[in-house]
Amino acid sequence: MDRDSSRPFTAEKYSYMKVLIIGAAGMLGAKLAARLANNGALNGHEITHLALVDVVTPKAPESTIPTDTAQADLSTIGTAEQLVSSRPNVIFQLAAIVSGEAESDFEAGYRINLDATRSLFEAIRLAGDDYCPRVVFASSIAVFGAPFPKRIGDDFHTTPLTSYGAQKRIGELLLSDYTRRGLLDGIGLRLPTVCIRPGKPNRAASGFFSNILREPIHGKSAVLPVADSVRHWFVSPRAATEFLVHAAELDAERIGPHRALNLPGLSATVAEQIEALGRVVGSDAVSLIGRAPDPTIDAIVANWPENFDPQRAIALGFRAETAMDDIIKVYLEDDFEAAQDS
Amino acid sequence: MDRDSSRPFTAEKYSYMKVLIIGAAGMLGAKLAARLANNGALNGHEITHLALVDVVTPKAPESTIPTDTAQADLSTIGTAEQLVSSRPNVIFQLAAIVSGEAESDFEAGYRINLDATRSLFEAIRLAGDDYCPRVVFASSIAVFGAPFPKRIGDDFHTTPLTSYGAQKRIGELLLSDYTRRGLLDGIGLRLPTVCIRPGKPNRAASGFFSNILREPIHGKSAVLPVADSVRHWFVSPRAATEFLVHAAELDAERIGPHRALNLPGLSATVAEQIEALGRVVGSDAVSLIGRAPDPTIDAIVANWPENFDPQRAIALGFRAETAMDDIIKVYLEDDFEAAQDS
Repeated sequence: MDRDSSRPFTAEKYSYMKVLIIGAAGMLGAKLAARLANNGALNGHEITHLALVDVVTPKAPESTIPTDTAQADLSTIGTAEQLVSSRPNVIFQLAAIVSGEAESDFEAGYRINLDATRSLFEAIRLAGDDYCPRVVFASSIAVFGAPFPKRIGDDFHTTPLTSYGAQKRIGELLLSDYTRRGLLDGIGLRLPTVCIRPGKPNRAASGFFSNILREPIHGKSAVLPVADSVRHWFVSPRAATEFLVHAAELDAERIGPHRALNLPGLSATVAEQIEALGRVVGSDAVSLIGRAPDPTIDAIVANWPENFDPQRAIALGFRAETAMDDIIKVYLEDDFEAAQDS
Repeated sequence: MDRDSSRPFTAEKYSYMKVLIIGAAGMLGAKLAARLANNGALNGHEITHLALVDVVTPKAPESTIPTDTAQADLSTIGTAEQLVSSRPNVIFQLAAIVSGEAESDFEAGYRINLDATRSLFEAIRLAGDDYCPRVVFASSIAVFGAPFPKRIGDDFHTTPLTSYGAQKRIGELLLSDYTRRGLLDGIGLRLPTVCIRPGKPNRAASGFFSNILREPIHGKSAVLPVADSVRHWFVSPRAATEFLVHAAELDAERIGPHRALNLPGLSATVAEQIEALGRVVGSDAVSLIGRAPDPTIDAIVANWPENFDPQRAIALGFRAETAMDDIIKVYLEDDFEAAQDS
């Protein structure tokens, strides 16, 4: 049953390049689809088909690539088998319910974040005929739990303190084991908190890190529920999208058997976020931030990582912003206009 | 749905002390059952009922405690619900298929080592009425994968390089998450390699560490498939049994949210094992060890941990042997006679 686990990912062997994005209606999924449509190629190979799937039908980006969009719930029986039946070379598994929801609904969290991911890996395993796609799995820094060292190293243990974090870590373990056995070719990305998240707040408890920048940029007030001294680990949506693309293109032999990666990001305090907002946008924007301490959010945030030393990912070529000013400018360049129009 | 997660394990609140051992026909399970039957109490409370379950009917130890033995496969539907229906206060989950078998049979490994354990936790969660038993989960140092530091610290990452190790780590993550949510009160024990294992070799690749001592003790020849310089991490069956009992009696408040523990053990080389055999048993025994290097076993063993610095478990009162001579003497005291008679 097991296949040759030493076989590296080589797009070269394929006569086509089919890409499947599960969770394509989400913020990152949509940006990834647009990025792939715009580039038209992955790993130097023209993308011949793009399949975009989510629990709500994703919007297809403007593209000359043949693109299918579909509404599908990976947690329902038969869906995973159907999705892999066209044998995509690269699969992005971004579908998940967010931390707040996974915490409030125990059963939904395990069904979506664990069982659905596992059903995807199982469908790939059982597809047969040496099918071994690159699977890029969106994990999270929520796999870590306090107490932390000043900077979290690549060999620091994962002791999640949320169900979401536990589910993501289990997904990583499955991904590495299926990869080791040659059943798929997986990479798990422990994404930093994406900032500035465009659009409306979702149910993630980390939402305020984006709110306090995005809302004032658009002239609206925002509420800061924690102290200015709170430090966290950030990446822009643009850099996060590039992480996904880079993970799809990486040479498997360079990665080794540990397939979950801590990624580069920017460690910044809320005060540093606000200072950058003042520099890039102005003091009027800063004055729109109101303070309303929330002990519940404060307690959650106290268990979150503040800083990393992601040497492996940097050696593998992953790159992120190094200044909060740049993270704000990315929003102004990529998302500001669309948000003003909507 | 969630219960009070701050509630510590307190046997005091129960009018009875029922104990369930799943995997009671295994070597450790049988020793644990005998130990509990002999002591008659757990956490200072008289054991009022002992339930022993395995895929083959376990033997009941001699005891005045009312004891039930049953053949049951936790991986079959409805079994977990049935086992928890009598609401045991303490559950030992020792059932697993060993590393070699989990590696050769992918589906059986995940079915038994992941799904069956999860079905137990689910049955506990759904039992209702604030049922929150202490669950002692037998994990393994197989949750770790090379490369290692000289001594593995309590915050070293778990990157298993076997399916068995991945399955055990997933079990730990579920255990911690269910515990954090107050659904059960779990402790995961990363057991060192048990040595000297009594009885016939099982399918664990680590079997030779016991074989090269046990067989010569009984005047039989044994084969050493690796170099004398190989170093590994050991505990006697007696100390491993005491780990299980100690874990059942620990005050939950002392453990904290990270419920998987690296345990104390003895780091020793094969050469040190053989020297101890010579000291305790004699040079005739040593001469019964033949060398037959096996590159396959050698490659597996190269990915195993050699040494730990288990500060948390030591602070929590777990104790193990500190000399290989003592490990051999434990076998002579606890298992030699029964093996000669059989």
